Amino acid sequence: MLDAALAKIDANRDAALARLFALVAIPSISTDPAYAGDCLNAAEWLATELGALGFDASVRPTAGHPMVVGKARARRKGAPHVLFYGHYDVQPPDPLDLWENPPFEPRLVETPHGKEILGRGTSDDKGQLMTFIEACRAFRDAGGLPCHVSVLLEGEEETGSPSLPAFLAANKDELKADLALVCDTSMWDRTTPAITTMLRGLVLEEVVVRGADRDLHSGMFGGPAINPIHVLALIIADLHDENGRVTLPGFYEGVYELPVEIAEQWRKLPFNARHFLEEVGLSVPAGETGRSVLEMIWSRPTCDVNGIIGGYTGKGSKTVLPARASAKFSFRLVGAQDPEKIAASFRSFVKARLPADCQAEFASHGASGALQLPFDSKPLAQARQALREEWGKEAVLTGSGGSIPIVGAFKRDLHMDTLMIGFGLDDDRIHSPNEKYELSSFHKGARSWARILAALAA
Amino acid sequence: MLDAALAKIDANRDAALARLFALVAIPSISTDPAYAGDCLNAAEWLATELGALGFDASVRPTAGHPMVVGKARARRKGAPHVLFYGHYDVQPPDPLDLWENPPFEPRLVETPHGKEILGRGTSDDKGQLMTFIEACRAFRDAGGLPCHVSVLLEGEEETGSPSLPAFLAANKDELKADLALVCDTSMWDRTTPAITTMLRGLVLEEVVVRGADRDLHSGMFGGPAINPIHVLALIIADLHDENGRVTLPGFYEGVYELPVEIAEQWRKLPFNARHFLEEVGLSVPAGETGRSVLEMIWSRPTCDVNGIIGGYTGKGSKTVLPARASAKFSFRLVGAQDPEKIAASFRSFVKARLPADCQAEFASHGASGALQLPFDSKPLAQARQALREEWGKEAVLTGSGGSIPIVGAFKRDLHMDTLMIGFGLDDDRIHSPNEKYELSSFHKGARSWARILAALAA
Repeated sequence: MLDAALAKIDANRDAALARLFALVAIPSISTDPAYAGDCLNAAEWLATELGALGFDASVRPTAGHPMVVGKARARRKGAPHVLFYGHYDVQPPDPLDLWENPPFEPRLVETPHGKEILGRGTSDDKGQLMTFIEACRAFRDAGGLPCHVSVLLEGEEETGSPSLPAFLAANKDELKADLALVCDTSMWDRTTPAITTMLRGLVLEEVVVRGADRDLHSGMFGGPAINPIHVLALIIADLHDENGRVTLPGFYEGVYELPVEIAEQWRKLPFNARHFLEEVGLSVPAGETGRSVLEMIWSRPTCDVNGIIGGYTGKGSKTVLPARASAKFSFRLVGAQDPEKIAASFRSFVKARLPADCQAEFASHGASGALQLPFDSKPLAQARQALREEWGKEAVLTGSGGSIPIVGAFKRDLHMDTLMIGFGLDDDRIHSPNEKYELSSFHKGARSWARILAALAA
Repeated sequence: MLDAALAKIDANRDAALARLFALVAIPSISTDPAYAGDCLNAAEWLATELGALGFDASVRPTAGHPMVVGKARARRKGAPHVLFYGHYDVQPPDPLDLWENPPFEPRLVETPHGKEILGRGTSDDKGQLMTFIEACRAFRDAGGLPCHVSVLLEGEEETGSPSLPAFLAANKDELKADLALVCDTSMWDRTTPAITTMLRGLVLEEVVVRGADRDLHSGMFGGPAINPIHVLALIIADLHDENGRVTLPGFYEGVYELPVEIAEQWRKLPFNARHFLEEVGLSVPAGETGRSVLEMIWSRPTCDVNGIIGGYTGKGSKTVLPARASAKFSFRLVGAQDPEKIAASFRSFVKARLPADCQAEFASHGASGALQLPFDSKPLAQARQALREEWGKEAVLTGSGGSIPIVGAFKRDLHMDTLMIGFGLDDDRIHSPNEKYELSSFHKGARSWARILAALAA
């Protein structure tokens, strides 16, 4: 069954590429209202394509660009049910003059390391989502899908998914599955697949520290009048100890050490921390003593001030003793850290450091926990095995420093874990001119999904 | 001689008041170009007045409003030479509807504690400068001036004296005297005169701390990438110890303890620190442990951050790890603190706290030392004696937290100390609607200057 599907994928390479070209040729730029018709075209193209594969597929209107929803049943009853998510919208291609080839006229080019598919959206996310659809096609041709498959394709990912939360809420029962699959991430490198199993959470807090009831003259009042900038600076300085650890009481509750196997895998990765930092003009890792850069970004919590302002900030000088100073803080969370507890601990920490005559006002700009696919979860083991068989090496289990909102929404609203597996490469130039997707990513990506679907049903 | 002059002042009270009314009636608002003619009128009125008193007086053009310069010789050769400074320009009277009486139609009103002269500029500085001119008039009528007297009256004090430095530089030899007298300060209270003997100096430094060469995503880089806001906060936090003392190496060099007599005088002053702070919404003195509020403002150095900015400061949140953060620092200096040394010590202090990958850029926005009329200076002793005789009590020797640029210019450019003696009161509402000057300030102010001029010549 799987072998037959893999053979179909291999046999239909050219046709698959032609389908991807047809989708890439539709300039579905979500941020520009002039391309709303193209977004609709892309949605309809996909619904038609899914329909041809036997999916019950439709274009579903939203306040913005439409969703595509498709559903197909597995060959056998009792098979697991997966929900695949991707997005058909793309970033604007500007600046156009930097493209070697027109962005919406996809083309295959030879490079020293293989063939590349050039065009806007080839990697983000049209090429990636088509790997999954091609896998489904292969199973149809080979006798049927091993899993029940639902597909949700969005047209507003590049503009922050404004219609998605309401759509998920309104179609919760329809969209609920056993597991979500997302193909919008990268491989570790050209020959090594990766599964993103950790997404850091985020607590966003803003603090305004107030002192006197007006700005004061620093000559008249400097000395006896409290300076809120100093108070805020002391609080910020206190938030880390000399080893770069966050000093909030209870902050590390729910922060777990990596399983030995994963720690070992990360240690052996050919990741050049120096190069990673040099790219942005830095050379020495800051942060927690004794933690590698990868660990810090993927699996350790942080506290950062994202902005601060107080007093006079124009040109030259003004001898003012400000009435207020404020700062925005973000905490990246991992493991089972509780966002509510951390926000509360932070507020207590600030209040405990307010001298006489100072008040603090707080505002929350969001609080969400980390997302962690348990290292011992069955679908993760199945996907790892499938990728090992396709690529001949172990998939790297990566973390992601940032958040991927759809994954949080699936967990929070649909109570589903997500397997994030993608075949993009770091040099795919997504969002930039000359975006490309490796032909091998496209072909072996489809084969990988075929193996994963088979493995999940095993 | 002095007695005769004092008798003249007493006898001519009504005529003196009429002259002040005439001057106040000229709306010499320096900041508003529509009143440039009135500024010239005020200058000419004063030059004519001085001419009538036997001064060689003239209106001297500048790039802005003119100066009035007058010179009169003492009755006897070898007398000391004083330069009196005042300003004839006034603040705008807005908001007009809050005035009980038109601002430029001066009027005498009865109050429970005596008569007040109402009108814009009655206290700041027309009434004050006329106390000195009336003293000169009395000596002329009584046989001649005890000192050589030069008078410099400015028309741009309320707009930051833009033409003054060039005028002083160009007329250095002409304006140089043994001692400067400035009548633009306040009494301690209605019945207690004051001499301001200390003005704090000011060092203004701006620092930009840079980390990465661009703003980073705090999810992608939070942890291993240095955050310049944190670095700046640590520097600010380090600048004071737990007793509120500034930790810059060498900062307290040249900071002297007050003479016992002065410390004792200050301790006994009926100064309500609580009330001083409550006026601006505070209740507890911050600053150096074990120092009174008056000490901190008048005779202790400070370090304050006047402004700070870094990262995202708009509404909501942005998970940015900023490439830079900056702050403006002001140091108030006292005694013999060396502004250059302090600026240098500050820069070393910052540099010593920069972690790897951080750079600091510095900008100076000015550096001037404190001005201190030596407590053992002869003119100070003479003025104290004169005020004691007029008011029947000891003059309070005050400091001033802020700077008075003209006094610095006299010291720096003309190498003259300044006696700052004024008869304003804290409730004179200068710069506000219903500005007033006490009739007793005006009358006894003139008598005080007569006594001081006599004492200086003794």
